[in-house]
Amino acid sequence: MFEHSKRLQFEAKPEQPDPVFARKLQELIGGAWGEMTVTMQYLFQGWNCRVEGKYKDLIMDIATEEIGHVEMLATMVARLLEGAPATETVRAVEDPVMAAVIGGMDPQQAIVGGGGAMPTNSQGVPWNGGYIVASGNLLADFRANVAAEAQGRLQTARLYEMTDDPGVKDMLKFNLARDTYHQNMWLAAIEQLKEDGMEDTVAPSALFDEEHREHATSLWNLSEGNESAEGRWAHGTAPDGEHRMGILESPEPLGGPATAPPPDPKLYATSGDGERPRDPQLTGGKGMMGKLKEELS
Amino acid sequence: MFEHSKRLQFEAKPEQPDPVFARKLQELIGGAWGEMTVTMQYLFQGWNCRVEGKYKDLIMDIATEEIGHVEMLATMVARLLEGAPATETVRAVEDPVMAAVIGGMDPQQAIVGGGGAMPTNSQGVPWNGGYIVASGNLLADFRANVAAEAQGRLQTARLYEMTDDPGVKDMLKFNLARDTYHQNMWLAAIEQLKEDGMEDTVAPSALFDEEHREHATSLWNLSEGNESAEGRWAHGTAPDGEHRMGILESPEPLGGPATAPPPDPKLYATSGDGERPRDPQLTGGKGMMGKLKEELS
Amino acid sequence: MFEHSKRLQFEAKPEQPDPVFARKLQELIGGAWGEMTVTMQYLFQGWNCRVEGKYKDLIMDIATEEIGHVEMLATMVARLLEGAPATETVRAVEDPVMAAVIGGMDPQQAIVGGGGAMPTNSQGVPWNGGYIVASGNLLADFRANVAAEAQGRLQTARLYEMTDDPGVKDMLKFNLARDTYHQNMWLAAIEQLKEDGMEDTVAPSALFDEEHREHATSLWNLSEGNESAEGRWAHGTAPDGEHRMGILESPEPLGGPATAPPPDPKLYATSGDGERPRDPQLTGGKGMMGKLKEELS
Amino acid sequence: MFEHSKRLQFEAKPEQPDPVFARKLQELIGGAWGEMTVTMQYLFQGWNCRVEGKYKDLIMDIATEEIGHVEMLATMVARLLEGAPATETVRAVEDPVMAAVIGGMDPQQAIVGGGGAMPTNSQGVPWNGGYIVASGNLLADFRANVAAEAQGRLQTARLYEMTDDPGVKDMLKFNLARDTYHQNMWLAAIEQLKEDGMEDTVAPSALFDEEHREHATSLWNLSEGNESAEGRWAHGTAPDGEHRMGILESPEPLGGPATAPPPDPKLYATSGDGERPRDPQLTGGKGMMGKLKEELS
Amino acid sequence: MFEHSKRLQFEAKPEQPDPVFARKLQELIGGAWGEMTVTMQYLFQGWNCRVEGKYKDLIMDIATEEIGHVEMLATMVARLLEGAPATETVRAVEDPVMAAVIGGMDPQQAIVGGGGAMPTNSQGVPWNGGYIVASGNLLADFRANVAAEAQGRLQTARLYEMTDDPGVKDMLKFNLARDTYHQNMWLAAIEQLKEDGMEDTVAPSALFDEEHREHATSLWNLSEGNESAEGRWAHGTAPDGEHRMGILESPEPLGGPATAPPPDPKLYATSGDGERPRDPQLTGGKGMMGKLKEELS
Amino acid sequence: MFEHSKRLQFEAKPEQPDPVFARKLQELIGGAWGEMTVTMQYLFQGWNCRVEGKYKDLIMDIATEEIGHVEMLATMVARLLEGAPATETVRAVEDPVMAAVIGGMDPQQAIVGGGGAMPTNSQGVPWNGGYIVASGNLLADFRANVAAEAQGRLQTARLYEMTDDPGVKDMLKFNLARDTYHQNMWLAAIEQLKEDGMEDTVAPSALFDEEHREHATSLWNLSEGNESAEGRWAHGTAPDGEHRMGILESPEPLGGPATAPPPDPKLYATSGDGERPRDPQLTGGKGMMGKLKEELS
Repeated sequence: MFEHSKRLQFEAKPEQPDPVFARKLQELIGGAWGEMTVTMQYLFQGWNCRVEGKYKDLIMDIATEEIGHVEMLATMVARLLEGAPATETVRAVEDPVMAAVIGGMDPQQAIVGGGGAMPTNSQGVPWNGGYIVASGNLLADFRANVAAEAQGRLQTARLYEMTDDPGVKDMLKFNLARDTYHQNMWLAAIEQLKEDGMEDTVAPSALFDEEHREHATSLWNLSEGNESAEGRWAHGTAPDGEHRMGILESPEPLGGPATAPPPDPKLYATSGDGERPRDPQLTGGKGMMGKLKEELS
Repeated sequence: MFEHSKRLQFEAKPEQPDPVFARKLQELIGGAWGEMTVTMQYLFQGWNCRVEGKYKDLIMDIATEEIGHVEMLATMVARLLEGAPATETVRAVEDPVMAAVIGGMDPQQAIVGGGGAMPTNSQGVPWNGGYIVASGNLLADFRANVAAEAQGRLQTARLYEMTDDPGVKDMLKFNLARDTYHQNMWLAAIEQLKEDGMEDTVAPSALFDEEHREHATSLWNLSEGNESAEGRWAHGTAPDGEHRMGILESPEPLGGPATAPPPDPKLYATSGDGERPRDPQLTGGKGMMGKLKEELS
Repeated sequence: MFEHSKRLQFEAKPEQPDPVFARKLQELIGGAWGEMTVTMQYLFQGWNCRVEGKYKDLIMDIATEEIGHVEMLATMVARLLEGAPATETVRAVEDPVMAAVIGGMDPQQAIVGGGGAMPTNSQGVPWNGGYIVASGNLLADFRANVAAEAQGRLQTARLYEMTDDPGVKDMLKFNLARDTYHQNMWLAAIEQLKEDGMEDTVAPSALFDEEHREHATSLWNLSEGNESAEGRWAHGTAPDGEHRMGILESPEPLGGPATAPPPDPKLYATSGDGERPRDPQLTGGKGMMGKLKEELS
Repeated sequence: MFEHSKRLQFEAKPEQPDPVFARKLQELIGGAWGEMTVTMQYLFQGWNCRVEGKYKDLIMDIATEEIGHVEMLATMVARLLEGAPATETVRAVEDPVMAAVIGGMDPQQAIVGGGGAMPTNSQGVPWNGGYIVASGNLLADFRANVAAEAQGRLQTARLYEMTDDPGVKDMLKFNLARDTYHQNMWLAAIEQLKEDGMEDTVAPSALFDEEHREHATSLWNLSEGNESAEGRWAHGTAPDGEHRMGILESPEPLGGPATAPPPDPKLYATSGDGERPRDPQLTGGKGMMGKLKEELS
Repeated sequence: MFEHSKRLQFEAKPEQPDPVFARKLQELIGGAWGEMTVTMQYLFQGWNCRVEGKYKDLIMDIATEEIGHVEMLATMVARLLEGAPATETVRAVEDPVMAAVIGGMDPQQAIVGGGGAMPTNSQGVPWNGGYIVASGNLLADFRANVAAEAQGRLQTARLYEMTDDPGVKDMLKFNLARDTYHQNMWLAAIEQLKEDGMEDTVAPSALFDEEHREHATSLWNLSEGNESAEGRWAHGTAPDGEHRMGILESPEPLGGPATAPPPDPKLYATSGDGERPRDPQLTGGKGMMGKLKEELS
Repeated sequence: MFEHSKRLQFEAKPEQPDPVFARKLQELIGGAWGEMTVTMQYLFQGWNCRVEGKYKDLIMDIATEEIGHVEMLATMVARLLEGAPATETVRAVEDPVMAAVIGGMDPQQAIVGGGGAMPTNSQGVPWNGGYIVASGNLLADFRANVAAEAQGRLQTARLYEMTDDPGVKDMLKFNLARDTYHQNMWLAAIEQLKEDGMEDTVAPSALFDEEHREHATSLWNLSEGNESAEGRWAHGTAPDGEHRMGILESPEPLGGPATAPPPDPKLYATSGDGERPRDPQLTGGKGMMGKLKEELS
């Protein structure tokens, strides 16, 4: 269960409105790497976490913080939109300043949101659940979390350079700092998983003896040029300490031709024998089902 | 420019059809963490890479390999669907085996794909470009790549346990191995970035002096319980070697109330003064635009 | 079956083109609360309506009208785009007026639509079926319809203030009026459902004796401050005439901890016992399936 | 800012696992009318609310409660999935019970979620921000909220009938009760808005004198049959107390033909004059831009 | 403006319910190649058609017919769902027949639609406007229409083979016939465009003298093997009667390396010179804007 | 398996940056009719092709070429964005040129892509797999391919007119030419299918004797006016050489009323008998399941 304080985690007061920047900030609210993503990703990871104790508590701490980050950004957007022009568009283009503002605004913030933030990115695409992951495997998830904080801090840094409003910059300096901590924190959590003997370097830390080990070591040189042979990834011991790394300079396909089996006539796919599948007889029970039933009986 | 060999990178031959598993394999083709994702993510990262030489070559090597992984999986799906039942549904439920198969199948593989793979996940949701990122910052992107390979290998491992067809397992053993190498490879590439002095631990490796450093160090204890204080993330030096890590046991909001400014009457938002905004006069030039113009003149 | 008249339900003639406004009007065509939504929502409700007679006839009357509203708006958009600039973009920015127009235009109306309307909202997001509902429960659906007409009229009012073209305003005055009638109409239909003894105030009008009645009455005060105790919703008889309304000032969770059960090793989730699930033995038949089979046998 | 308690708002303990029902419950988590929708809808409405005091406090109370409802459902799903079969699919179809369960399961709950809930609906479609609205107009938004609680309670009632697990039913009885209260509550809030003189019956409560009043009163009889003339919506005073309601028995279109203007040759639309627009001369400055510039100069 | 008849264009009466088939039929309602697609595609093409007379009238005739096809299918779905099991899922799996039906059903048709059709495809993905095109170029659009009718008839044929209910088959025989006519009709309309001298074979029928003609003739042999040299597409005169067709057996890239320009430091992309872009100075006015302004001044 | 050359298929060098055009070019990358679509459509068609030899080889030749087209466009976008303004937005509007550019730019190309191309269309909507089809029926698919190349060339032609940068135009002249060849090529492939006796004019070339032939011939005149009677589609022999074409001047519905069956009380749909479905008794086994079981026993 959750509770709410009226005050923001950190102040979100622009010195003056800036509707063009209000649109750009949407990327940090409803973009693939915005605050709705980390909120929902961490909430679902926390609810799906099977390890009671410090891990679950950590995930829920951060998840709960992130809801408040969406709140800060949504508040900032509403304030940046104060007095945003809803004026007649034909008249507006008489005034280049007004016109430029209109061109750069998010029309939905006015028409749909009434001067408030939208659950969308800077191009108006609604946030969706396909952006998040909560796999139950903490190593795989923490790697996704490091990535999310890295992309999030990068986008915040870019937006930080796109404004000189002291109030906006002040809030973004807080966001940058939290993203710095959160990157360090998830990296430390990955180290902790190893110390606790729960996961190793590669996720999932299993099946190494079953997989085709001989293919777990080499870069396939499939793009012209061999500069990639110069990198750390093509030499020495792998980060997991268990594999050697190398390069396959002139790779050849190992499999046979990429063919598909003959079509079931009832699906009216084009067949290769030059005979059109006009009005086929039902062939029920042949093919897969025949084999399957045979085996099962 | 690209070229194509007729043969598969690795063999993709099931011993017998299995339309239920054919549906599950769709997750590895068109799911958020499937092969279409790594194909497109690496291609866009390669095209957007500003560092000529080993990094760009590496990214394009792997991107090109991944197109061939989609090919292997699509071929496997078509073969698993050989003879899949397209029979009448009411009759089908007479036979529990047939019925179970129908219940577990992907109806679009038959109706739309004619017995072939779809560009969707195991629930039929089409793959979309919102799954990928190519930011131009190699540290942020390589972290996303490690995450993608980790989630990808995890899902492959789960599917590996859901079949006992030797041919399917043989192909998945190759996929598992490649995912092992690719995780190690991207982790090595992150180390290489540091060795080359191009990026550090936290992305982007900039703005640390500008951000509010005092907020870059502490876990906010916002979820009941303090088990999270026990982890590595709450003590000692951070992974970036530059920050100390701590915990804020009883956090208080630092900002003011989350209020929004009074509405523009022309947007017909509900105002707080008990007066309905009936047919407002135009207020053009007030608010943001007034301040903005004043400053600009 | 449907038939079509060549003439529009109401005139849609702008005095002059305005490509910037043509983009904004897309919100009324393909937005979540636009005319495609009410068209499809009412059509599916009508086809799914199990009450022959006045209700079904009403729904089909309005559904059929709404198709014509999409037609009016699409025609208006094409006319607002007459002669819209498809000129070279670098040159365009020499001329502030032209530049502003280009900045505010919908690029797809030109590139994809050839100067016509798109099946998208003002930000270019395609209309989708997730916006609509047809539940078979007329009370629930009519409440959704009131909401749709309310949001629709609100957005129309906002757009009405953003133009001073007499022709555009003339059409929008018709749209506003229809939305006024349709709101009244769906509200009247809700009253009619009660008069006919088919539904009550709360949807569905069932299960009141089975639900936990003691939790059907109180506001949980989960956000700091108790101003919400002042509203009608915290005192007296509820609108359904059957419940009392109150407030729970200091709510405590009623459930136990939000834990998840131990993971199946074959899913490679991280387990809490410090042992990594390396290459687990198959445990087939344990857990849920065991219990389930036991009960069924 | 938010805080989190470890305990659930209400208990979420099934008596036994039921992976088929676990899939159906996804509709209440990530469906258009599920708990993610009301969570996000109320949060954005609260942040966008311009009326300090009881309204804003109310919205934030309920928004905060709803996050906890997603938590209850996600916890229930993980428990219903305990031991869910991840076994080989071909073998599975030998056993009709197992087979049926596999057919009815959500494959992503295992493959992606590792036995946990997904941010999707019962068909696997990810939740998205297009489901919610926060318009700044409290009347329009409260009508949307009544609709959301009505559809939500309806779906909960349907799911309540689809299980006989006492633990699941116990939780759903709580959910039903909350939905009952929330419907009453938003209806009471609409009454309160009127009492406070902030809004009337029709949203937005403005522009009635400007709109074409003569079209704000009649049902257009566009579907064959005139049963719809029998309803309350075709007679007497409208619910807003300001309009009369009637019916237009034999409606005729009021507008002219739905034509579109001649195409700009550079857009290569097909023109009506039988001349193909081969390699057109640039016509820059004609059409809209000419008129526009003329007016502005 | 539109009008509605109560009767269906063709009868839609199954002999008995079949909820599994009801799910499959969704592909014809809300799939990419279903009836919602042709309805909306033809409506937008009609509204965007700039050629008054026979073409516009034709498009509107068919568009109007297609609305009625959605109606037929939605009615069929509701009837196929009569009495569909909403029973408890754990109990259901005791009975293999019931279990199979539950496994193969669309859960949303019950939970959301109350036993009615959904605006989605057979996998539950909502229909969206990205499926349609209305370009204003009649040749390009009619080619898209032929494709839509071809895929539509193919899917109908597949579904026709998946049922033996005489009532369902009777309706599908009508649908197949209409799709046959509509394919012929759009093909005839393409011929008519040529006869009228409005378009040629290739869309748009323009710019042939400007394009690089030498690249408008050859197949690039980029996939191993040269079987493709045997087809009509590699020899003789092209269908447009204006080009020769040939093959480029051993194609070489014509362009230079696929490099991207050095990054703007404020975007924090990784640069190639080994220097991290820490806290860059603003470089405003350099790069593109400098060149642009220079040229404009 | 695939391989990659470093050089582009054709040069992609603009003379100068143009960030506004860089946004528009996104339509050719990630739009419904852009290069990602033809890449993925042809790849899946090739993998799903059941006809070994010239057809499969052709499809894979073109699929492989198209990956390189995405590469050319992504490279062009990065170059057009060189030095694109990331400056402060409030300052920017002081300068009309800068302001106009900002208004017309794609904010994600900077914030997310770091100055590179996005996997989205010109409005920022991510590319998705719902745009493509690979049905296994070569006639249906080749018709979709002709349509894709037609819409693709049309959009390229429109963009060609929107720039006067010689470098951009040079690349687009190559793209136009390839689209010309590809249209001719797919049209020739359709002829080849007929010559090989594999498919006829109408897809699928089957079921003509089973469908209701009498409905395979006539245009239903459902839109006011009879200009459509003048076209080739209403007279003479159909393109398939097997049907006559005519017109139904005054069409009447052939089916009965569009009614839906009485609701299952457990679904809480509103019933027509004036009795509310309060707390229904379970009716398990009635309706469909009863009939179904009876038949099966």
